[in-house]
This record gives sequence, structure tokens and C-alpha cells, in this order.
Amino acid sequence: MERDLIAKIQRLAGAQIKDPSVLVGIGDDCAVVAPSPDRHLIITTDTLVESIHFDLDYFDPWHLGRKTAAVNLSDAGAMGGNPRWAFLNLAVRPGMTDRFWDSFSKGLISRLSEYGVSLVGGDTVSAPDRLSLSLTLIGEVKKGKWLSRGHAQPDDLIYCSGNLGEAAAGLELLRKYKEKRSPFKGQKGAHGISRAVLKRLVSKHLDPEPRVTLGQALAAKGMVQTAIDVSDGIATDLAHVCKNSKVGAEVWAREMPVSRALKKTSGILGILPLDLALTGGEDFELLWTVSEKNESEVQKIAAKILGYRPFRIGKIVQGDRVILKTSQGAKDITYQGYEHYI
Amino acid sequence: MERDLIAKIQRLAGAQIKDPSVLVGIGDDCAVVAPSPDRHLIITTDTLVESIHFDLDYFDPWHLGRKTAAVNLSDAGAMGGNPRWAFLNLAVRPGMTDRFWDSFSKGLISRLSEYGVSLVGGDTVSAPDRLSLSLTLIGEVKKGKWLSRGHAQPDDLIYCSGNLGEAAAGLELLRKYKEKRSPFKGQKGAHGISRAVLKRLVSKHLDPEPRVTLGQALAAKGMVQTAIDVSDGIATDLAHVCKNSKVGAEVWAREMPVSRALKKTSGILGILPLDLALTGGEDFELLWTVSEKNESEVQKIAAKILGYRPFRIGKIVQGDRVILKTSQGAKDITYQGYEHYI
Repeated sequence: MERDLIAKIQRLAGAQIKDPSVLVGIGDDCAVVAPSPDRHLIITTDTLVESIHFDLDYFDPWHLGRKTAAVNLSDAGAMGGNPRWAFLNLAVRPGMTDRFWDSFSKGLISRLSEYGVSLVGGDTVSAPDRLSLSLTLIGEVKKGKWLSRGHAQPDDLIYCSGNLGEAAAGLELLRKYKEKRSPFKGQKGAHGISRAVLKRLVSKHLDPEPRVTLGQALAAKGMVQTAIDVSDGIATDLAHVCKNSKVGAEVWAREMPVSRALKKTSGILGILPLDLALTGGEDFELLWTVSEKNESEVQKIAAKILGYRPFRIGKIVQGDRVILKTSQGAKDITYQGYEHYI
Repeated sequence: MERDLIAKIQRLAGAQIKDPSVLVGIGDDCAVVAPSPDRHLIITTDTLVESIHFDLDYFDPWHLGRKTAAVNLSDAGAMGGNPRWAFLNLAVRPGMTDRFWDSFSKGLISRLSEYGVSLVGGDTVSAPDRLSLSLTLIGEVKKGKWLSRGHAQPDDLIYCSGNLGEAAAGLELLRKYKEKRSPFKGQKGAHGISRAVLKRLVSKHLDPEPRVTLGQALAAKGMVQTAIDVSDGIATDLAHVCKNSKVGAEVWAREMPVSRALKKTSGILGILPLDLALTGGEDFELLWTVSEKNESEVQKIAAKILGYRPFRIGKIVQGDRVILKTSQGAKDITYQGYEHYI
């Protein structure tokens, strides 16, 4: 079965694209690829474990494949890099069907293909109890032109590419109504939330949009040096930036990008929209810092790609804490985000 | 604790070597490395799952770290490549101590360091029940100069770098005497095998020697194009070569490198040494094919690195099967090796 599964993935991956940079793909001791001249390599890897990061009660295999790709693509985007080659490690538990793997592989490859990434290797092993998925992504970036977490400076403004907290709300809804994809059925469920709102929030969790093109554009102009993707909630992700840059940050509650969809579900979920926006993980929006001098130019670049103006949510300050500023006062939220590692 | 564990690994990895090719290490969205000019990249990745690939009853963390590195280094060696950067994905189950991770990380880094490999990234997540470890290794090879599974030709001779079946015997012994490392205690155990024999076989399983230098030397001279490392037993590994090269192979029972140590344990284990040598996994010896014309020159190159003459164990033939030739006749052993994926 190992050989069957590898052959299946190999077939689907091979059909996908003819990538002249892939000299040896799946099926040898190593993959061999030809990097472009004058580039640095960027590498990222993420592991998703069943019942920790996803649950097959609500995650269909096609979306799981797409998300496995997206979480890594998002990291490549946060470096401003061009993702090129992917490697998939599967630990397969008993009871998984051919149909599952067919759908998973197609989902994975569909997301990778959008960014010209070829699946060229990996490893498939058995696991006694739980499915586990690791994807590793290698990409390229012009020499010295990557974004990092480490160059934010006091008075830089903090920007965000989209609404926050929606993926966390989507996950809560999925967990609440575990019948697979049932929230999509009918005009309104027993929960009283419209189909459109449900779909929006649930999609943000199942199928987040990695901000690869945006990250590349920000890096290209050289006016942004610091970025991170929002995977653990900005309270934690901004704390990472602060630590690496040796600065503090203040976040403005009134500027937080909270969608109407999020507000509508907050009553049902019993969680304040602002809390979800600050601490909810997996939105995979891009967060970056920019000097006042470059602000309007960078805003234009981002708006052109996003189709709307990015959100200015705070600024970098002296210190080492992440502080939330509200009309009632200030609150330390450093590392208060969601962490997968329990 | 995720942050604590990452910080620990980061500290140990950072202390290891100052590698000027590492521009961004552990602690950003991606690692950034500078590849050498005029090289192709080789990439390999392997996953080890607790209770499938190892058992903490007999695997101490330091050796587990070394083996996690070795299985990937072995793949890099089988391509004739120069491994350079490593990425570690950990799925950590409850109940694992700081001391375990300290020892594991030191073991891992000790093996990587022997080949100048820097640990520059990864991912750490929690798992409900079982420890799972994936290592990904990126290396370099001179443009077009890698070894593959796909260039064996009829009449090529098949060579092997060392004794086969010892790792499988070592694993059987470890499973039989699960008291941690107890086989090393005393001059002779209840099992009647000498300490030296036990240590040799058990070490072959716990701490296999990846044939990186040998693979590089074989690739450098251009007289060898086809190689594979013995991870699933030569019955299966040779079948991979046959499939990729569109050839068959015959293996000579009388030439099989079976050590005296292996013979001594065979009675206790109740498995014939030849069967262990053909189907036992994880010896991580290098297997290669060479034309008659280049045979003696390549033999010399290998002997210089190994300190003994490599073993000529068979030859490539027309067809698509792996055939064992014995004094009693011939037997099809295609894909009869050990497979981790159950």
C-alpha cells in the first residue's frame, strides 16, 4: 500500500505541470532540482496532526490538502519569497480510503499549482492511531531581499492584509456543528446564521488564502523589511516580531479589522469579536511594518493586489511588550494568542 | 513549552557551527540559506513514528537523534550529494522530559555535524499519543553529477558497501530483551551471545553509518551512475533499481556479505542469516552497479574509503525481477524486503 499511495501521488503530481527545474521527482533516494542563479533559498515546514490541528469530522480531504499547502505557502509569502518545490510527509493511520487520498492529493496539488509549486518528494509511513501531515516548501528570493521578523523600528506603522478572527470563528462553528459540511445546507440552520456568513467564516478556516503575491510585492520594492503571517493570533505573532526586532508594539482596538460576519456570530459563540481578532489563530493574513515615509506608497502596492486598502492596526514602540490600546485603557497581550502546541 | 523546546534546539543548533551559508536560521517564517553556484539541489525527507520505526523501551534519545539524522544522510549519500541544511519536524506526545529533548537534540546535531550539516528550521507541534519525527535534508551536487536508481544496465555488477542483515538482527535482539540497553551489561547475557557480538548488531540498528563519503566518491569519478541505500532489504531495494532502470537483477547467495556475528545470533533468533541479509531493513549500506570496464577502479575507490573491499553480490540482467541464485536453484525475491509501512 505504501507503493500504491506513492504511485498515486506521483501520478497526480506528474500530471500537474511540466516543470523543467525538476530533474528527479518522486521515486528516488532524493529529489533533484535546479535552482535559479543569484537567488537565496527560503525553506519552511509545517506539521498538521489529526485531532490537534484538524478533525476529519468537519475537514473534507480536498480542503485538508489545500490547507496543508496554504499554511506553508503563507510562510513563503511572509518572507516575500517565490515558493517552488514541495515535499509531503504522510503518517497514515488505518482506515483511510483510496478516495480520501485521491481527493487530498488533488486539493494539495490544486493549491500548490496556483503558485507554480511542484510536488517532488516526501515520505509515506504508517501511524497506529492518527493521521499526520508535514509539508516542506523550498522557494527562492532575490539575494538579500527577504522579509524577516527582525527589522521593525519604533514609529513604524503596523499593517494587516485582511480581517482577523474569522478563521477562529469558523473553527468554533465547525466544532459546534460537527455534521460534515452541514452548515452549508439550507438557507439558515438552527443556529440562525445566514448561509453566506457561515460559508465565509468556515471557508476562512478550511481554505485560507496565502498572501504570497502580496509578500513578494512588498519585498520587491524594498520599502518593507519586516513581515509575519498571522498563524497564532496577532497577540502572539506581533510578540514574535517584537522579540526578533527588540521593540514593543501597540495595537489599536478601534482599528482592528473585524468583519460584520464575525460580529454576527459572536453572540452565538459567546466570544467577543475583538478577542477572536487578537487571539484567534490561522487567519494567515500578512502583517507588516512600514516607516511613515514609505507608508502611502506601500499602501497603494498592497491595495492594488488586495482590491481594498490594507488595515493600519497599530505602531511599533520602544520596549518589548505588545500592548492593546482601548478607549478604557491599555492591556498587555504579549503572547496571548492561540497556540497549537498544547 | 513549544517556545521553550524550540529555544533549546535553537541554542544547541546555534552553538554547533558557524555556517556562513545560513542567513536566517530557526525562528523566522522561513530559513534562508545561500546555495553554492553551479550546483543542483538534492532533497530527502524521512518520518519516524514511535512504535512503528522505534520504541523508547530500547531506543535511548541520543541514539534516536543520531538515527533520525543518519537515515536522511544515507539518502543524500545514495545520490552522491553533499548534505548541507536540515529541518526537523517534531510531533511531541505528553510525558516527554526536557532531558529527553536535550539528549535527542545533541545526538541529532552530533551526527549532522560530522557531515557539516546545519540544523536551520523545522516545526514543533503536539501529538496526543505518539512521538513522530521528520527530518528533511537539503544538499548539493555538481550539476548533472548525481547517482540515481535509473541507470543500471544488463551485465553491470552489483556491489554492496558492507554486511547485510545485521541491523535487522540487532532490532530483533532489542525487541527480545527490552530492558533498556541491558544487552550491553555483563560479559554474557542469559541469551548466551557475547557482549561484543550483541554490541555490534545492536549498534548497527541504533547507530547506522550513513555512506555519505562513499557515495560522493563514487559520483565524483563518473564511473558509477546508479546507487541506492539499503533501507528496506536488498530484495526490495534492488527491485526499486530494477523498476527505475527497466532491468532485472540476480543476487548470488554464496556472495552475500553475512558476518560471523549475524551467524552466531541466527540460532537464537530462529531466522536464517541469508534471509535477514536479503529482507532485513535498515542496514543503510550503499548498493551500486558498475560496468565490468570500470569495476576494478571503482573497487579501489570504495576500498580506500571503507578500509576493506566492497562486496560483489550479483549482476544486472535483462527482465524485471530480482532473482536469488543458490546452489539449490533460483528464487524470485522481488519486493520481498521489509517494509515499514504495514
